[in-house]
Amino acid sequence: MAWSGLLQQYKEYLPITEDTPLLTLLEGNTPLLHAENLSKELGIDLHLKLEGANPTGSFKDRGMVMAVAKAKEQGSTAVICASTGNTSAAAAAYAARAGMKAIIVIPEGKVAAGKLAQAYMYGAEVIQIEGNFDRALEMVRAISETSPVTLVNSVNPYRIEGQKTASFEIVDALGKAPDVLVIPVGNAGNITAYWKGFLEYNERHNSGLPKIFGFEAEGAAAIVKGHPIEFPETVATAIRIGNPASWQTAVDARDQSGGAIESVTDDELLAAYQLLASREGVFVEPASSASVAGVIRAVQQGQIAPGTTVVAVLTGNGLKDPQTAMDCKVIRPRQLDSTAPALQHYLEEVLSP
Amino acid sequence: MAWSGLLQQYKEYLPITEDTPLLTLLEGNTPLLHAENLSKELGIDLHLKLEGANPTGSFKDRGMVMAVAKAKEQGSTAVICASTGNTSAAAAAYAARAGMKAIIVIPEGKVAAGKLAQAYMYGAEVIQIEGNFDRALEMVRAISETSPVTLVNSVNPYRIEGQKTASFEIVDALGKAPDVLVIPVGNAGNITAYWKGFLEYNERHNSGLPKIFGFEAEGAAAIVKGHPIEFPETVATAIRIGNPASWQTAVDARDQSGGAIESVTDDELLAAYQLLASREGVFVEPASSASVAGVIRAVQQGQIAPGTTVVAVLTGNGLKDPQTAMDCKVIRPRQLDSTAPALQHYLEEVLSP
Repeated sequence: MAWSGLLQQYKEYLPITEDTPLLTLLEGNTPLLHAENLSKELGIDLHLKLEGANPTGSFKDRGMVMAVAKAKEQGSTAVICASTGNTSAAAAAYAARAGMKAIIVIPEGKVAAGKLAQAYMYGAEVIQIEGNFDRALEMVRAISETSPVTLVNSVNPYRIEGQKTASFEIVDALGKAPDVLVIPVGNAGNITAYWKGFLEYNERHNSGLPKIFGFEAEGAAAIVKGHPIEFPETVATAIRIGNPASWQTAVDARDQSGGAIESVTDDELLAAYQLLASREGVFVEPASSASVAGVIRAVQQGQIAPGTTVVAVLTGNGLKDPQTAMDCKVIRPRQLDSTAPALQHYLEEVLSP
Repeated sequence: MAWSGLLQQYKEYLPITEDTPLLTLLEGNTPLLHAENLSKELGIDLHLKLEGANPTGSFKDRGMVMAVAKAKEQGSTAVICASTGNTSAAAAAYAARAGMKAIIVIPEGKVAAGKLAQAYMYGAEVIQIEGNFDRALEMVRAISETSPVTLVNSVNPYRIEGQKTASFEIVDALGKAPDVLVIPVGNAGNITAYWKGFLEYNERHNSGLPKIFGFEAEGAAAIVKGHPIEFPETVATAIRIGNPASWQTAVDARDQSGGAIESVTDDELLAAYQLLASREGVFVEPASSASVAGVIRAVQQGQIAPGTTVVAVLTGNGLKDPQTAMDCKVIRPRQLDSTAPALQHYLEEVLSP
C-alpha cells in the first residue's frame, strides 16, 4: 500500500477525531539508511534517520501537520509562529495546503534572507518586529490568546504528538527499538517526542526501549551546563537555543532511558558534517550532524560498546543551509586548460592510490 | 517491508547481475501527492510525483545509482561527468557511498558557486576548464575512453535504466498507468526513461500506457522548433539545454503514446512555480514547474479533458535554487514595531476576508 501520510498512517496513536482533516504533504516514511562505511569504522551498527527527506526538508513537518490539522478542525483560519528557520517553512507549507493563512513573526536583523525563501514561496505573511526572538515569541503568544489565529510554536502540544511518529517508523524498519537513539538537542522538543513515541509503541507492541543520547552544541549547552545561556553561539543555527522549551521532559527522557545529554564542539560537529557527506553520501544541515558527532565521541569514550545498534537522527536537509557548506569547503574549482593532456595528467594524479 | 532502494526493489527490471553491488542511498519511493487544490480548480485529477524527495534532491539519483553500481561492478575506481547542476550532486553522492572518486568538469565562469556546494561536500574533485559545456563534455568523453574512469553523463545507458523506475512507482501507487503523464523536457533523457518504464511494466502487468506530454522552456525549445538552439535561455536552468541528447527517443515517446511536446514561457513557468508552493505547499526547482505550467495550458486549450487522471513529474527540490525564489518574491519582510496593538492591527487587516 502506498504511504498516505502521518495522520492516516498512525491515526490510532494520534489525537485524531472524526472531525480532524487528514491533512498531508506525504510527510514521514523517511529513509532509515544503514551507514555502511561509518559502521565499519566505528565497530557498531549505525543507522541514519534521514528527516531531511520530509516535504519541507526537516523533521518539523511531522509536528506541523498535526498542529495545522487541529487548528483547521477547530475552525481557525490562520496560524502564527515566531521563527527564523525550519518551523516557519513547515507552518507556511501546511497552512498553504490547508487553505489557511500563515503569519511568521521574525526578529529584526537576525534573519538571513535565504532562510525565508521557503516561507515566502509558500505564501506566508512575514512580519519583522523590533526586539529579539523571545520578544517575537511573547508577542505571538499574546496575540493568539485574543485573536482567531492558532499558535503553532513548540508550546502547541500537537507538535510533540506528530513528532513522536518518527520512533514508530524506526521500530517498524528495524523490527524493534534500537539499543541507542542519538539526537541533536536544541529546543528539546524532538528528544521529548522520540521518547514518547518509543514508550507508546512499546506499550502496544512490546518493541523495547532505547537509551536516549542527546547532544547539544557546546556554545548553546543549557541542559549540560544546568542553566540558560544568554547568548548562545554555534554554527549549528537550528540548535542555537539558550533556554530549551522542553528542558524538563528532555531530562526525563535521558533519565528514564538510562541515557545521557552531553555537548559537542563546533569542530566536532563540522567534522561529522563533512564525514557524513564524503563517506556516506548524506548531506545534512549542520545541526543534524550533532548526533553523529556525538556517536563518534561516545564510541571513543566507551559509552557506546562495539556491536551496539545505534540510530542517529539527522533532522534536516543540507540544502537548507548551503552557505555553511561553502564556508566550510573552499569552493574554488581547480583550473585546467581545455586540452586532453592537461586533464589526462590531472586524472593520473587524482587516481593514483 | 521497509523500502530497500531501487536496485533491490526493481532488480528483475534492471541490468543487475550477481556481481552488481546493491548500492543505495534509499533513493526512489518518492511521494505521489494528490494536488487537492489544483485538481479542483482545473477540473482534473492531478497527482504530483515529488522527485525532489530523492537523496540529493532530484530525479538524477535514480539513474546515477544504477550507473555508479555498474561502474563499481566493472572494477572502475572513479566516475567522471561534465555538469553544472543536479547530475554532479548525484554522481558525487553515489561515488562517496561506493568508496569511489568523482571528478566533475565544469566550464569556466558558467557556474554559480552555490550549485557546487553539494558536489564539494560529497568529496568530489571539481575542475574547471576553458570553454563551454560542450567542450567539457567532449573532454570527459575522450578521457573516459583512455583512462580507468567511467563516464556517467547521460550517454551512459544505465542512467535511463535507473530512471525508468519512477514509472513503476506511479503505476504501483495508482494501481494502473495514469491517462496522461506530463514532464519537463531538457536533455530529454527523463521523458525517454518514463516511457520505457511504462512500456516494460505494461508488458508484464498489463498496467496500461499514458499519453506523454513533454514541455520545454520556450527559450530552449529545440524539439518544438525542430532545430538545436545555439544560445538557450530560460530561468529554468535545469532544462536550459539547446541540443537534447535523447531527442529522437523523446519524439518516439511522444508519437508512440499519442502525446505532444510543446513549450511554456518563463512567465507561465514562474506562475506555476508560485502556484505549486502557495496552493499545494510544494516547493520545487523552477524547471520542475514546466510540467504543471504545461498542465494548466493543456487544460485551458482542451488538450486535457475534464476528469482526466494526470501525473505531473516535479523533477527537483526547490531548495536546490533558493535564489530564484528570492528573485521572484520580494524577500522584504513588513516592518512593525514590537507592540501588541501594532500586531493586532496588522492581523485584523490580514485576516479580514
